[in-house]
Amino acid sequence: MIEAGIIGGAGYTGLELLRLLLMHPQVKVSVVTSRRYRGRKISEVNPHLERFIELEYEDIDAREMADRSDVVFLAVPHGSAMDYVPDLLRAGTRVIDLSADYRLERTEYERVYRRQHKDHEPRKAVYGLTELHPEVADAFLVANPGCYPTGAVLAVAPLSDIADRIVFDAKSGISGAGAEPSVKSHYPNLAENIIPYEVTAHRHLAEMRKELPAVKVSFTPHVIPSIRGILTTAHVFLREGTMSVSELESLYRQYYDGKSFIRLRVSGVMPSLGAVRGTNFCDIGFEVEDGGDRIVIISAIDNLVKGGSGQAVQNMNLMFGLDEREGLWRPGLIP
Amino acid sequence: MIEAGIIGGAGYTGLELLRLLLMHPQVKVSVVTSRRYRGRKISEVNPHLERFIELEYEDIDAREMADRSDVVFLAVPHGSAMDYVPDLLRAGTRVIDLSADYRLERTEYERVYRRQHKDHEPRKAVYGLTELHPEVADAFLVANPGCYPTGAVLAVAPLSDIADRIVFDAKSGISGAGAEPSVKSHYPNLAENIIPYEVTAHRHLAEMRKELPAVKVSFTPHVIPSIRGILTTAHVFLREGTMSVSELESLYRQYYDGKSFIRLRVSGVMPSLGAVRGTNFCDIGFEVEDGGDRIVIISAIDNLVKGGSGQAVQNMNLMFGLDEREGLWRPGLIP
Amino acid sequence: MIEAGIIGGAGYTGLELLRLLLMHPQVKVSVVTSRRYRGRKISEVNPHLERFIELEYEDIDAREMADRSDVVFLAVPHGSAMDYVPDLLRAGTRVIDLSADYRLERTEYERVYRRQHKDHEPRKAVYGLTELHPEVADAFLVANPGCYPTGAVLAVAPLSDIADRIVFDAKSGISGAGAEPSVKSHYPNLAENIIPYEVTAHRHLAEMRKELPAVKVSFTPHVIPSIRGILTTAHVFLREGTMSVSELESLYRQYYDGKSFIRLRVSGVMPSLGAVRGTNFCDIGFEVEDGGDRIVIISAIDNLVKGGSGQAVQNMNLMFGLDEREGLWRPGLIP
Amino acid sequence: MIEAGIIGGAGYTGLELLRLLLMHPQVKVSVVTSRRYRGRKISEVNPHLERFIELEYEDIDAREMADRSDVVFLAVPHGSAMDYVPDLLRAGTRVIDLSADYRLERTEYERVYRRQHKDHEPRKAVYGLTELHPEVADAFLVANPGCYPTGAVLAVAPLSDIADRIVFDAKSGISGAGAEPSVKSHYPNLAENIIPYEVTAHRHLAEMRKELPAVKVSFTPHVIPSIRGILTTAHVFLREGTMSVSELESLYRQYYDGKSFIRLRVSGVMPSLGAVRGTNFCDIGFEVEDGGDRIVIISAIDNLVKGGSGQAVQNMNLMFGLDEREGLWRPGLIP
Repeated sequence: MIEAGIIGGAGYTGLELLRLLLMHPQVKVSVVTSRRYRGRKISEVNPHLERFIELEYEDIDAREMADRSDVVFLAVPHGSAMDYVPDLLRAGTRVIDLSADYRLERTEYERVYRRQHKDHEPRKAVYGLTELHPEVADAFLVANPGCYPTGAVLAVAPLSDIADRIVFDAKSGISGAGAEPSVKSHYPNLAENIIPYEVTAHRHLAEMRKELPAVKVSFTPHVIPSIRGILTTAHVFLREGTMSVSELESLYRQYYDGKSFIRLRVSGVMPSLGAVRGTNFCDIGFEVEDGGDRIVIISAIDNLVKGGSGQAVQNMNLMFGLDEREGLWRPGLIP
Repeated sequence: MIEAGIIGGAGYTGLELLRLLLMHPQVKVSVVTSRRYRGRKISEVNPHLERFIELEYEDIDAREMADRSDVVFLAVPHGSAMDYVPDLLRAGTRVIDLSADYRLERTEYERVYRRQHKDHEPRKAVYGLTELHPEVADAFLVANPGCYPTGAVLAVAPLSDIADRIVFDAKSGISGAGAEPSVKSHYPNLAENIIPYEVTAHRHLAEMRKELPAVKVSFTPHVIPSIRGILTTAHVFLREGTMSVSELESLYRQYYDGKSFIRLRVSGVMPSLGAVRGTNFCDIGFEVEDGGDRIVIISAIDNLVKGGSGQAVQNMNLMFGLDEREGLWRPGLIP
Repeated sequence: MIEAGIIGGAGYTGLELLRLLLMHPQVKVSVVTSRRYRGRKISEVNPHLERFIELEYEDIDAREMADRSDVVFLAVPHGSAMDYVPDLLRAGTRVIDLSADYRLERTEYERVYRRQHKDHEPRKAVYGLTELHPEVADAFLVANPGCYPTGAVLAVAPLSDIADRIVFDAKSGISGAGAEPSVKSHYPNLAENIIPYEVTAHRHLAEMRKELPAVKVSFTPHVIPSIRGILTTAHVFLREGTMSVSELESLYRQYYDGKSFIRLRVSGVMPSLGAVRGTNFCDIGFEVEDGGDRIVIISAIDNLVKGGSGQAVQNMNLMFGLDEREGLWRPGLIP
Repeated sequence: MIEAGIIGGAGYTGLELLRLLLMHPQVKVSVVTSRRYRGRKISEVNPHLERFIELEYEDIDAREMADRSDVVFLAVPHGSAMDYVPDLLRAGTRVIDLSADYRLERTEYERVYRRQHKDHEPRKAVYGLTELHPEVADAFLVANPGCYPTGAVLAVAPLSDIADRIVFDAKSGISGAGAEPSVKSHYPNLAENIIPYEVTAHRHLAEMRKELPAVKVSFTPHVIPSIRGILTTAHVFLREGTMSVSELESLYRQYYDGKSFIRLRVSGVMPSLGAVRGTNFCDIGFEVEDGGDRIVIISAIDNLVKGGSGQAVQNMNLMFGLDEREGLWRPGLIP
């Protein structure tokens, strides 16, 4: 059994990790921290977990965390993860960081997140977009990708060498904004609406550009009145010529051959959020503009699973030599 | 491995059975029928099941069904199940009927459902409200309860001998109305609305009265703008006196002792549909009117799981000597 | 032109007053206060009002308010209205208070709202449930009813002398909880859910009992995933015997004869929130339990209009000798 | 008073026309047709219109329609309007066609809609995108634009001479799909989802290209879980250079000067569907990619009002010499 600890277990990312790890046959959740709820039973604060976990929230330091865990998941806000990582690694624990702290090069990080990076070691994290970075298997520190980059990059990775320009127009459920009530998550503001935000300058753009260095990338996110899911509409313009749908399908089939969590939608069916709800799948569909030069690729993920905690578990599986599907192999919650 | 067959595998009940059985470690789905989709791959008609099932929909008769299955689930409309049951039982297969055909005494059935019962054997089905009917373990024919009666009867069963009158005011997600588009399920009609229907004479009332014979039972269902879930508000008036919340809690704790899927909400927390989403739990909360004679009991279930296919699997587990939690033990999908 | 002032014009009640008064042909909005937004253009804080109002939010005292208004609407939290009322009345202005401060007798108010009443005059406010209290026409101080009591009392008023017991099970859109983000209004908590709250002891119960003194009244509110609207399901038990639907219809038709905003749904159609969305109507439908002693009356209102600001405008119309429909006569926003 | 007739008064377009015309001080609705509901009271079929209209649905021919109306609105499916138009025009009535039948040149129409055009006269309809086509004032036949082209073209019209390429990524409420239940409008399919459809080849693309002849236009529509509204995200690439937000604002301010229903959102506020709900406004917001060549313009309309029946009424106002705001001047339904 892998002993897994979670730092920051009261937000949506931490709770989704708990939901997934509690169903994982090779994992024992050893410790879960929360400053706010320290000392309270986890299942009392989160009644949906009653009968699944007996632990209380704790508030312990990195070293004790490392002592009690084979792997530690960091589900804390950007800027906090870097407070834990050096000590955890020094103690020999594997670390999967779900914050943005180790996703970008230091200078790029400091530019995008407008803060100093406090970890002064020349640390190399592996970017945990699992399908594109099999080297996670050997990593001690995995920087788990942002939700938007996961849906966007997986949608177009097979085209990354031949695309000239890609406009990602993404639509996300509101759970990506976290468990704290806010103006955006206030029901009367979001219901019967769709909210564009950070329309040209969302921080996740930097991750997309890093993974698609040869492409001119633009990105506009929107929040839709849904709890979970991200549907990414990728408007792709190739450097030259165009491709047919069947050429696309065969390119993608080859590229993603053997990838358990990538499902290609052929025969005109488009991905839906329901088909991936609660799961680690990324479903991808294709259409090509007749007589035009635009290719449309559409991907669907569950932002909290493949776009967050599920991908973190998938990474853990690889880091510990397990089948990547372990603990994650379930169909989407439809209807 | 239990070989399980599903008759009627394209509606929401059948699809939910599939979702659950495909995750069940002791079950192999052997055959799934659908007249409409006969010959088509199940995962092509239902893309969320891709990579989980290779079967095609078939259209076979009861006898062949029995040959290929240890247990057959009937997920067909009321009035059709009785066409299959006699042949299935004769062939020695266990049968779990999710329609209403065997839930009531024949004459009561004919009155309520306004049709002749075509099965002329003096058949005894066990009513599969699992927590109240442990005799399902020995049954060959289980009549799986309606969704509303499940939420309603479980909410008040411990009070069934001392309650004088109970008004059940139930609120259901629209998935209970099935996979076929209808006026009620038309998005602009249901969103930003709540639809009361069959306000005094819903057919499920008969099941409630059968299970609560000593109580004056009234029932009003509503559809809410949600996919899944039933929240039942039970307004209870005792024959004499009243009870405190702590008396209620202790009565319920005793009554439901050892029942894995009943969770009592204490300390003022009320059940929510999220905490049971996708699960087989029935969560129950309590409040007593100060200075009044009314007790309010609130239960939450997922109408497609505990209110349908999950309870059917729970019954199958008991019928085959398994732990009732097998294949069903997962926390609710929150958020 | 009636010069109308609004104290507290930044919450949902105040904004809805603005929406309605800006369309009223006999009204000029003279002043709108908000401490928080003092000095900012109203249409800048609320972009949906752009091109309809040029005023800025102000922060002035009751006396200046009175100088500049023929009628003042108080759209402030409970406990604050009583700070303004004495001065406003002294200055001769008519006052319509949308808070709870003057709805109950002083001692009852202090019991229910758990605070001292600061207005020491033996003040008599008229309870502004317009259809039942035509004396608003002569009032100087109107206590505009709560949203739940409006839907509940109008649903059963014609039965108030012959009903023994009524259980109101109400379902409200979340806008009733106000414009401030909260745990309850957090989208992931409310979507795909329905939230029962203050299940036996909501403060609005006191208003219902005051208006229905001869009936045993119980009340349980729920929040549904909708922005606007309250659907009230009234489970009515008569003191003796029962009534047919046609008897009910004729009783109600007589009782509400000439009432512009009460629409009776006959021929089995039940009220819907869409049909009253954005309007001042209260739609009412009936069903009688066959062979039982229960009558079900269902009413639908828009909680912010008939359940709040619209009824306030209706009261203003009567207080100033206008047709009660003035400025309010529009069909519901369907779809 | 203008006598207005509606052909096809039972669908969402016809009902929205009714809702708007019944509030229009200069209009009397003279006749409304529906084959399906012929002979039934309009307010009985549509309870939200009770007390607003006494008429019954009729089924009469174009000539009688013309006799009884000064203007006829055609709210019938594509392909049917052309059956009425010749006779209506011959009889001297003004016609506003809300179908697609007269929006495109004949050959383009036949290509896009894949049917023969049955009207053999060399008819010139004015394209009723009111802000861009003041010549509607003199028209006898107005082709009212599609909902998507309205939101898209208004968003970028001021840039139509300098843009090289525009990708419209549009998100619509489901009411655009009509009043008939369908797979797409089935609540469990749409809730918690967003549905891309006709991703490269929606028929409205032809209208956009006609109005923006100098631009490479792409268009991808999605349906969001909302009843009303279209939010259009226009990703704009200029032929050369870029523009600042303040340059955009000043260009737009000049271009739309005096247009009552165009509201420009400055200072970083983005349009929302709530602010235009139930209204004829088109709200427009701007952002420019820092260091990039992409401009993002976002527009919001109510698809049934500015995107359909409201714009039809606006056109009627101009055709009859009225202020364009007559009968349409109301703030959005927020919250």
